[in-house]
Amino acid sequence: MPAEAPYIGVIGASQASERELALAERVGELIAARGAVVICGGEGGVMDAVSRGATRSGGMVVGLLPGEDRSRANPWLTVALPTGLGELRNALIVRACNALIAVGGSWGTLSEIALALRVGRPVFGLGTWELERPGAAGAVVAVSDPAEAVEAALAGAPSGS
Amino acid sequence: MPAEAPYIGVIGASQASERELALAERVGELIAARGAVVICGGEGGVMDAVSRGATRSGGMVVGLLPGEDRSRANPWLTVALPTGLGELRNALIVRACNALIAVGGSWGTLSEIALALRVGRPVFGLGTWELERPGAAGAVVAVSDPAEAVEAALAGAPSGS
Amino acid sequence: MPAEAPYIGVIGASQASERELALAERVGELIAARGAVVICGGEGGVMDAVSRGATRSGGMVVGLLPGEDRSRANPWLTVALPTGLGELRNALIVRACNALIAVGGSWGTLSEIALALRVGRPVFGLGTWELERPGAAGAVVAVSDPAEAVEAALAGAPSGS
Amino acid sequence: MPAEAPYIGVIGASQASERELALAERVGELIAARGAVVICGGEGGVMDAVSRGATRSGGMVVGLLPGEDRSRANPWLTVALPTGLGELRNALIVRACNALIAVGGSWGTLSEIALALRVGRPVFGLGTWELERPGAAGAVVAVSDPAEAVEAALAGAPSGS
Repeated sequence: MPAEAPYIGVIGASQASERELALAERVGELIAARGAVVICGGEGGVMDAVSRGATRSGGMVVGLLPGEDRSRANPWLTVALPTGLGELRNALIVRACNALIAVGGSWGTLSEIALALRVGRPVFGLGTWELERPGAAGAVVAVSDPAEAVEAALAGAPSGS
Repeated sequence: MPAEAPYIGVIGASQASERELALAERVGELIAARGAVVICGGEGGVMDAVSRGATRSGGMVVGLLPGEDRSRANPWLTVALPTGLGELRNALIVRACNALIAVGGSWGTLSEIALALRVGRPVFGLGTWELERPGAAGAVVAVSDPAEAVEAALAGAPSGS
Repeated sequence: MPAEAPYIGVIGASQASERELALAERVGELIAARGAVVICGGEGGVMDAVSRGATRSGGMVVGLLPGEDRSRANPWLTVALPTGLGELRNALIVRACNALIAVGGSWGTLSEIALALRVGRPVFGLGTWELERPGAAGAVVAVSDPAEAVEAALAGAPSGS
Repeated sequence: MPAEAPYIGVIGASQASERELALAERVGELIAARGAVVICGGEGGVMDAVSRGATRSGGMVVGLLPGEDRSRANPWLTVALPTGLGELRNALIVRACNALIAVGGSWGTLSEIALALRVGRPVFGLGTWELERPGAAGAVVAVSDPAEAVEAALAGAPSGS
């Protein structure tokens, strides 16, 4: 049952490169294939790509939207939840997931990464922020491809936690 | 597809009477039968009963939990989302739904009803708060049974809105 | 020192009658005279009147604004804090105060009253919602004038709590 | 009047070095001397030091606390506001200020920096995160001492904005 499945947050920018979109779509496919749930911001770019990948593979995708209605939701969400919180909804994505995968991304993505590390969710990165400050190196675990990202995220996010 | 389905918030107390629990379970069954999504607080009492009714009827239930993890989620949720917001998560339930059905309930339920009316979500009540203040009478639409509640909520919550 | 002073939330509608505005202004004067801090929504109507009363009497007023900037703040605030949360900022007013005084008010006010009672903040009412449901009667303590409201709120909100 | 004054967010860790604490205290003194308001997280470490500096210099300090009560507030706050939001209150600090000064800091500080840059608040850093990603270099403006930090923050945060 999904409520017992791991929830994997997938984060990245609404303006993304072709390569990032392809990575995100593959991440979505693999999460779905493993029976886990995707949590994302529910809009475009990386959010759209991961949603499309997961839904086409029969998975479940929850979109936590910044706005007050569903008008900007991407068409691939299983559940679209308007929050009315603007960018503060990023924190809800972090809270709702057991582990995060970051694909590329800019300031919004970095805020989610940092909050995740603050509250103890592991973060796995595909071409995303690398943090070099002493004590921070390696905190975002760089992975080489979507398969490694998803396996690592599932290993870091025990079912039902 | 569920993202285009209406989302019906179902609210009520974690401490509820047998009659309220039976009403909530029936509400859940009927929402599921109509292909709509249940949004609730994800814990016990009315939340547990509506989740059980909907899930047993093949429907989808989203629980927005007050705590920081899934440990207090009821076992009937399709999607269990910890928010870490405490009672402030009530406002997210209101934001995320198109219409609300209130079954019994105490202060938490009243706060959700009032916020819903503030932001324009219609509210239908089964044995819940009746507000008699001038201008407020009838704002919570009293309905006589779960079938009337669900039909009224769906009529008040157009698909995709 | 203000951080040790009681914090009294004062709530009511942005569209208020002359009588309600006069009551709110007097409530603000009396809270200031007692050295307590006013917490309010920071905009117009009752919020403007209580802010004016408190500031003119040398008190301190914190406005928790629904928008993302200070453009709609009333001119009487000591501290104006944009939250970007929309109506969800009502919950922050409740969290930030030790007791509430409600002057008139509509749905937004009712949501704050109900949430306050849910989380254990006492509520004192001047011409506001009266809740007649069994178990709820008397939960909003009806008071007859601003002086009684402020004395009751201070008695219910011990310094430093 | 403070409501028209700039609001400068000062962020940094609750576990800080002696040097960071001295920097933060000086930042607080200088913000107060310029008539601006300090917004911070209201607890210990850098938050305590900046609050002490500002208050001793006659300034005003607002603490947005993560917990549900004031028990962990530092003793130097002018206004102590419990939010009950946990680490999500970081986003409120960003929303409420016109510019930020970061002193040292770990993940929580980085999440605030990133969110600030996402929503357009300038950030000035004293020994804090340096972000080297293409497009990000220089986004956190490194300054050399508290005086430069405060002047830059005030220049980046026009009064009343």
